[in-house]
Amino acid sequence: MKNKSRSYRNKIGLPPGSLVYIGEERKEKVTISEIDFSSDHCKEIDLKKVTECNSWDNPDSVTMLSVIGIHNMGVIEESGKHFSLDPMILEDIVNSQSRPKLEEYDEYIFFPLNILGLDLISNEITTERISLLLAKNGVISFQENEIQIFNPLIERIRNGKGLVRKRKSDYFFYRLIDIIVDNYFLVIEHLADRIEELEKKILQESNEGAHEEIYDLKRKIGFVKRTISPLRECISNAKKSEGELLSESAQNYFKDIYDHIINQIDTLDSQRETINDYLNLYMSSMSNKMNEVMKVLTIFASIFIPLTFIAGVYGMNFEIMPELEWKYGYFVTWGAMLLVVILLLIYFKRKKWL
Amino acid sequence: MKNKSRSYRNKIGLPPGSLVYIGEERKEKVTISEIDFSSDHCKEIDLKKVTECNSWDNPDSVTMLSVIGIHNMGVIEESGKHFSLDPMILEDIVNSQSRPKLEEYDEYIFFPLNILGLDLISNEITTERISLLLAKNGVISFQENEIQIFNPLIERIRNGKGLVRKRKSDYFFYRLIDIIVDNYFLVIEHLADRIEELEKKILQESNEGAHEEIYDLKRKIGFVKRTISPLRECISNAKKSEGELLSESAQNYFKDIYDHIINQIDTLDSQRETINDYLNLYMSSMSNKMNEVMKVLTIFASIFIPLTFIAGVYGMNFEIMPELEWKYGYFVTWGAMLLVVILLLIYFKRKKWL
Amino acid sequence: MKNKSRSYRNKIGLPPGSLVYIGEERKEKVTISEIDFSSDHCKEIDLKKVTECNSWDNPDSVTMLSVIGIHNMGVIEESGKHFSLDPMILEDIVNSQSRPKLEEYDEYIFFPLNILGLDLISNEITTERISLLLAKNGVISFQENEIQIFNPLIERIRNGKGLVRKRKSDYFFYRLIDIIVDNYFLVIEHLADRIEELEKKILQESNEGAHEEIYDLKRKIGFVKRTISPLRECISNAKKSEGELLSESAQNYFKDIYDHIINQIDTLDSQRETINDYLNLYMSSMSNKMNEVMKVLTIFASIFIPLTFIAGVYGMNFEIMPELEWKYGYFVTWGAMLLVVILLLIYFKRKKWL
Amino acid sequence: MKNKSRSYRNKIGLPPGSLVYIGEERKEKVTISEIDFSSDHCKEIDLKKVTECNSWDNPDSVTMLSVIGIHNMGVIEESGKHFSLDPMILEDIVNSQSRPKLEEYDEYIFFPLNILGLDLISNEITTERISLLLAKNGVISFQENEIQIFNPLIERIRNGKGLVRKRKSDYFFYRLIDIIVDNYFLVIEHLADRIEELEKKILQESNEGAHEEIYDLKRKIGFVKRTISPLRECISNAKKSEGELLSESAQNYFKDIYDHIINQIDTLDSQRETINDYLNLYMSSMSNKMNEVMKVLTIFASIFIPLTFIAGVYGMNFEIMPELEWKYGYFVTWGAMLLVVILLLIYFKRKKWL
Amino acid sequence: MKNKSRSYRNKIGLPPGSLVYIGEERKEKVTISEIDFSSDHCKEIDLKKVTECNSWDNPDSVTMLSVIGIHNMGVIEESGKHFSLDPMILEDIVNSQSRPKLEEYDEYIFFPLNILGLDLISNEITTERISLLLAKNGVISFQENEIQIFNPLIERIRNGKGLVRKRKSDYFFYRLIDIIVDNYFLVIEHLADRIEELEKKILQESNEGAHEEIYDLKRKIGFVKRTISPLRECISNAKKSEGELLSESAQNYFKDIYDHIINQIDTLDSQRETINDYLNLYMSSMSNKMNEVMKVLTIFASIFIPLTFIAGVYGMNFEIMPELEWKYGYFVTWGAMLLVVILLLIYFKRKKWL
Repeated sequence: MKNKSRSYRNKIGLPPGSLVYIGEERKEKVTISEIDFSSDHCKEIDLKKVTECNSWDNPDSVTMLSVIGIHNMGVIEESGKHFSLDPMILEDIVNSQSRPKLEEYDEYIFFPLNILGLDLISNEITTERISLLLAKNGVISFQENEIQIFNPLIERIRNGKGLVRKRKSDYFFYRLIDIIVDNYFLVIEHLADRIEELEKKILQESNEGAHEEIYDLKRKIGFVKRTISPLRECISNAKKSEGELLSESAQNYFKDIYDHIINQIDTLDSQRETINDYLNLYMSSMSNKMNEVMKVLTIFASIFIPLTFIAGVYGMNFEIMPELEWKYGYFVTWGAMLLVVILLLIYFKRKKWL
Repeated sequence: MKNKSRSYRNKIGLPPGSLVYIGEERKEKVTISEIDFSSDHCKEIDLKKVTECNSWDNPDSVTMLSVIGIHNMGVIEESGKHFSLDPMILEDIVNSQSRPKLEEYDEYIFFPLNILGLDLISNEITTERISLLLAKNGVISFQENEIQIFNPLIERIRNGKGLVRKRKSDYFFYRLIDIIVDNYFLVIEHLADRIEELEKKILQESNEGAHEEIYDLKRKIGFVKRTISPLRECISNAKKSEGELLSESAQNYFKDIYDHIINQIDTLDSQRETINDYLNLYMSSMSNKMNEVMKVLTIFASIFIPLTFIAGVYGMNFEIMPELEWKYGYFVTWGAMLLVVILLLIYFKRKKWL
Repeated sequence: MKNKSRSYRNKIGLPPGSLVYIGEERKEKVTISEIDFSSDHCKEIDLKKVTECNSWDNPDSVTMLSVIGIHNMGVIEESGKHFSLDPMILEDIVNSQSRPKLEEYDEYIFFPLNILGLDLISNEITTERISLLLAKNGVISFQENEIQIFNPLIERIRNGKGLVRKRKSDYFFYRLIDIIVDNYFLVIEHLADRIEELEKKILQESNEGAHEEIYDLKRKIGFVKRTISPLRECISNAKKSEGELLSESAQNYFKDIYDHIINQIDTLDSQRETINDYLNLYMSSMSNKMNEVMKVLTIFASIFIPLTFIAGVYGMNFEIMPELEWKYGYFVTWGAMLLVVILLLIYFKRKKWL
Repeated sequence: MKNKSRSYRNKIGLPPGSLVYIGEERKEKVTISEIDFSSDHCKEIDLKKVTECNSWDNPDSVTMLSVIGIHNMGVIEESGKHFSLDPMILEDIVNSQSRPKLEEYDEYIFFPLNILGLDLISNEITTERISLLLAKNGVISFQENEIQIFNPLIERIRNGKGLVRKRKSDYFFYRLIDIIVDNYFLVIEHLADRIEELEKKILQESNEGAHEEIYDLKRKIGFVKRTISPLRECISNAKKSEGELLSESAQNYFKDIYDHIINQIDTLDSQRETINDYLNLYMSSMSNKMNEVMKVLTIFASIFIPLTFIAGVYGMNFEIMPELEWKYGYFVTWGAMLLVVILLLIYFKRKKWL
Repeated sequence: MKNKSRSYRNKIGLPPGSLVYIGEERKEKVTISEIDFSSDHCKEIDLKKVTECNSWDNPDSVTMLSVIGIHNMGVIEESGKHFSLDPMILEDIVNSQSRPKLEEYDEYIFFPLNILGLDLISNEITTERISLLLAKNGVISFQENEIQIFNPLIERIRNGKGLVRKRKSDYFFYRLIDIIVDNYFLVIEHLADRIEELEKKILQESNEGAHEEIYDLKRKIGFVKRTISPLRECISNAKKSEGELLSESAQNYFKDIYDHIINQIDTLDSQRETINDYLNLYMSSMSNKMNEVMKVLTIFASIFIPLTFIAGVYGMNFEIMPELEWKYGYFVTWGAMLLVVILLLIYFKRKKWL
């Protein structure tokens, strides 16, 4: 959730299509891997260059090309040339801050989007950019790191399970997006868990740190919402795409993803509402506590200050103070003080302060 | 109102159409019952398997098939095969968390929605998923439990009363939805009752627990609103459906349901507004109380602290303190103290604090 | 402004078109009256049954039929049969809680709406349901009570004044609605008067009861807004109706009503804004008062507590306390105390607390 | 800014087109003046009756007819007859409360709108209704008072300067509206000046009267916004009018007015935002002051109350109190008290209260 | 960020197209410079008058004409005549307060917009108006000052680098706008930096000046948002322009700018949300501090006031006070006082105030 947008600074004044990596600094080497499969074969190769990819033009198999590391401009440019991609696409691939969008070109559907994850140690939400390119014979993915959440799908392809081996690249493309969107649920459920814990805390009136937690959750819900909501339009476009790259059956599957995204946005909206309610509850419980503190002070002060005054009066050293010589003066004074206490207690009782 | 969405966790990475039950864990056996009726007959049968249903293909009678228990994937899959349902429909049937929607297929109208109820012991609002499937010759309902609110309608069918025996499956479908929507009024009226009680409480300034109640009502109004509002679009679609499954007269009836839903959403909006006003009123009454507490403290302290000071002065032990030897010194001091009290009382009176 | 919607309870499970009266319980007998007029005659008759109405089918005169009392299902059903009304219309007529709407049927325009009034004793806003039915030869009105605000119009008809005698039923229909909408201004002006009084109160800082008044006004403005705002759509539909029941000239008149409703909604929105400003002003004036109370306390306590301490010191009974034996010890002490007071007063003056 | 809408009361029950003046009571005589000009002549005449206007039908000159005083129903009715105006137009002319709108009739464009001004003595915003009627050969304006802001334009016409003498009535109509809209900037700039002064006040933390000023500005900004915003739609309609009254070049000029209105609405929105920020700043500065008051009280009380207690202890009169007989008891006590003060000062310092 | 709109005052009553400079007063001389380039040449000339520009009509080169200084009406009028610009364009050029808009004329595209910058000394955001005019053979820019941010582009043109020398004027036009929009990121990142610093401050609870900073940031975010958001519509229009001035490839580039603007508006919205959260956090931390202050006061007062009372009692001078004569009276009293302290400490501990 770091605001990395400041690297935009480096881009000002450069011509369009200038490839400037925008994101956290990275030094890792770029790795390129290829999976090529059809209903009767599946092979995996690690490539040195994207130009080594031979199976791409084969219309009978689906090829998945993963370029891991978008900070190496050379590799990106090479890919651009090899697959004749629009320079604008390349610019968006290396800008990990750009807004998710689904753009249909004649030969490609370009879909950069974000994968959300949880850093289990810091409890922070992590975000990773992946740019998917759907072509007739395969899918190219440009990503910052290796993406673990695709592993079960890759495993199924290796083992020949499921439909994916039997279908075209558009189905595979759908499956990748489906996994990414399903994965958002994990983050949303993590937030739900924390909201539930917060609720317990607040209902037990142990407000220690509650406000910071409320504020942290607000920020995170807002962040997740901002990450997911641009997808609504993207998927909606995919659903009714008129190009040839997405078959009708794939479009049907996108309806399902669309439902998930609407569901997620709904949940996030309701979480935000809940958090705002908690903020209110917290503020009013603070106010309540203040009231209680003030009541205690008022009761103590209002009872003992008059008593102290009475004691003060008979501590005066006037030569002539008749009461001082009375036999039961001291005891009468005690009685008077007791009376004052009782009257005040009744008064506070009536005001319902006790 | 439990957030059960976390079972989504189990679905990530599975191919589409994978049936994973999402909802509370259940162990009950699935029961399947059938009612078949036309204007001149009505028979009820308990089935072991959906495939036993013989009357389904009979165009002269309306068949209602209730599958109670959506946690058994076997039964759902069997139904899917027997009635040739889209895998996406099956996935939605077993996902009790999905958003209500009305989808028109060639052979079916699929309408998953939620039934709201009241748990009279815990005062909680309960929610149950029911998925209705309207076909040419009947209605299939997939539900979590037996649904009591349909009983009066079933009874009328048994006794041959009313229009439902004389009409087609679309009328029966309408009647089921009408009952579900009418039932929402019960929950909304329950909320209205609680808001009225809350109003009394707040106007009597007995705020004990008022904030928790306000917060609880806010949460519940929001929950009911979120449950009902997706239906607006669904019913609106039904109203203007262009398929053959809903006859024109049935569409007319859906206008009536549409009016009810708009009415319910209006009522919930106005309830939310009222609750927010109460929250404000509550906050300001807390502020008022604080003010009163502070006034009492200020008046007591401001009167007695100066008096105590005067008493303190004549409690000093200086050898030469002329006043101490005056004959009426003690009484003059009392007089002075009385004067101070009177002046302060006038001062507070002027400030309208008394 | 009572929430009467709870009678919906009785309707659940009944078939559509079941007539269940929804509203306050009433026992009065239903009365039916008829006015029939054309440019050259005007006759008034009290009917026992709606079927007695003979002039209805006469295309040369306009007939106004008023059915007062919608709690008698028999009369409503009879009307339904006699004038062949859709069962859905009848259901809406007896449901005084339903949302205003304008529905065009082939033979009728059905327009249920609410009349607002003022109960001058309790200062409450009253609401009455009236359902107007425009037909080719007349208007039928179903209402809960006799409606006084139509009297001037009726009088003009009796006396043969104005256009209404010369025109068709659609003009008469327009005139009835115009009167109802104009009447809303009365209620809005009543609210404006109360807001003005409230302003005076708040500016004079006499906040006694101000918050309850603010809250009451908020509630009432919201209620009136909710009553009026559905009419915007209704009248807008009437304005551009394509049926034959509303002539073009009548549609022109509806433009005028539309302007009035927009004006009313604008006024109510601005009143709501004003009320929210007052709420803010009130809250901040409470805060101001609190500040003042605290300042008085702080000044009193900060001045006299140190003085009391000084007096306390010389009230100690140590055997060796040199100051006590000084000749001017007592007077020096007084001087010291005076100095403390002056310094503190300067301090508070600098802080602008005095 | 007085709410004059209550005069609506008098209209209820009257037929449409009934002329009832709605606005402040006025007694002045109605004056009617005419300016007739073309590229080669310009004459001004004061008329007694609108029927005296001869140049109206002359297609070669532009005639401006100003009717000052809309409270005289006779003159308005006469104008209506003479120029054959729709009764609805007349009703809107005399209702100075109606919402600005631009209505196109076959022969006229009717445009009632409000002129804003500043009463320099009371600092209040004044509003005046003007109803403009554009016809083929001239413009009729119905207004409450003489309108000073048109004088420069009239002067230019007299002197034959500028384009207006050379163009048709639609250009003149545009120029009148342009002047009215430009004049709104004066009021908006007055508000901007007051907001700037308020800012200075608040930043110097001299909050005396700040809240009343905030509230007054909020109210005025809202009022100006409500006056201007209906014009957006009106001018937008004029811009794309399809009638023959507005030539294409005039429509182009209306684009310019449209830009001004959008600019004004933007400015008002940003002013409202600023005012809300000031309100917040004010509230938080009040809270800050309260905090400071409480700190002073707490520091004084916390330091001197323990000291007073110590002094009180050695003021007790027990026969056996060893310390009293110690030689340095008194001085040790002073030392102890000093120690308490120092410790407390360190404590408060650490809490950053000092 | 000064509100300069008050100079509108001078315009009222003037005919349309009257050139009145609206902006800060300036005295500098107007300078005019020309760059003319094609793929094989590039020359720069400083002109005295716009009429001296010879290369403008040459269809084979792109001419950039910069008029620096829009406060000299003579130069503007001359330009208007020489390039036959609409008077409305001229009026907008000299009004540096007008709203950005993109207007397509037959021969020109007119696009006045604002450049944002940072005054590094005062930390204020500066704004400068530039009006771009795209023609077939070149671009004219009217600006208040020389604009530094174009220098890298000019340098590239001089050196013959990049595409711009090879393309038409529309590409050059796009590049200018791209630079301006990219430059907005600098300001947004400056705001992001300040928000981050503010966060640190608030989390360390050192609220000194935090509120002023919050308020200043709110104001600035609002200002930047208002500056950028009208461009959304402008660029969207450019993207789908149907005129001949923007070639299809240029329109494609505008899509990229559009994405940037959406991204910027998103970021500003999220910044505003964050700032509001900080305001909340700040307010609640103030409330927390108040609570703490009150607790300290209450604890001190509640402990020592009763003790002082006890001491006061045995400071009374009654002749008969049995306790005073007890041998261990003094010590028993100390014990009692200790007991009171312990009980109160337990009480406060239980309330979790310690």
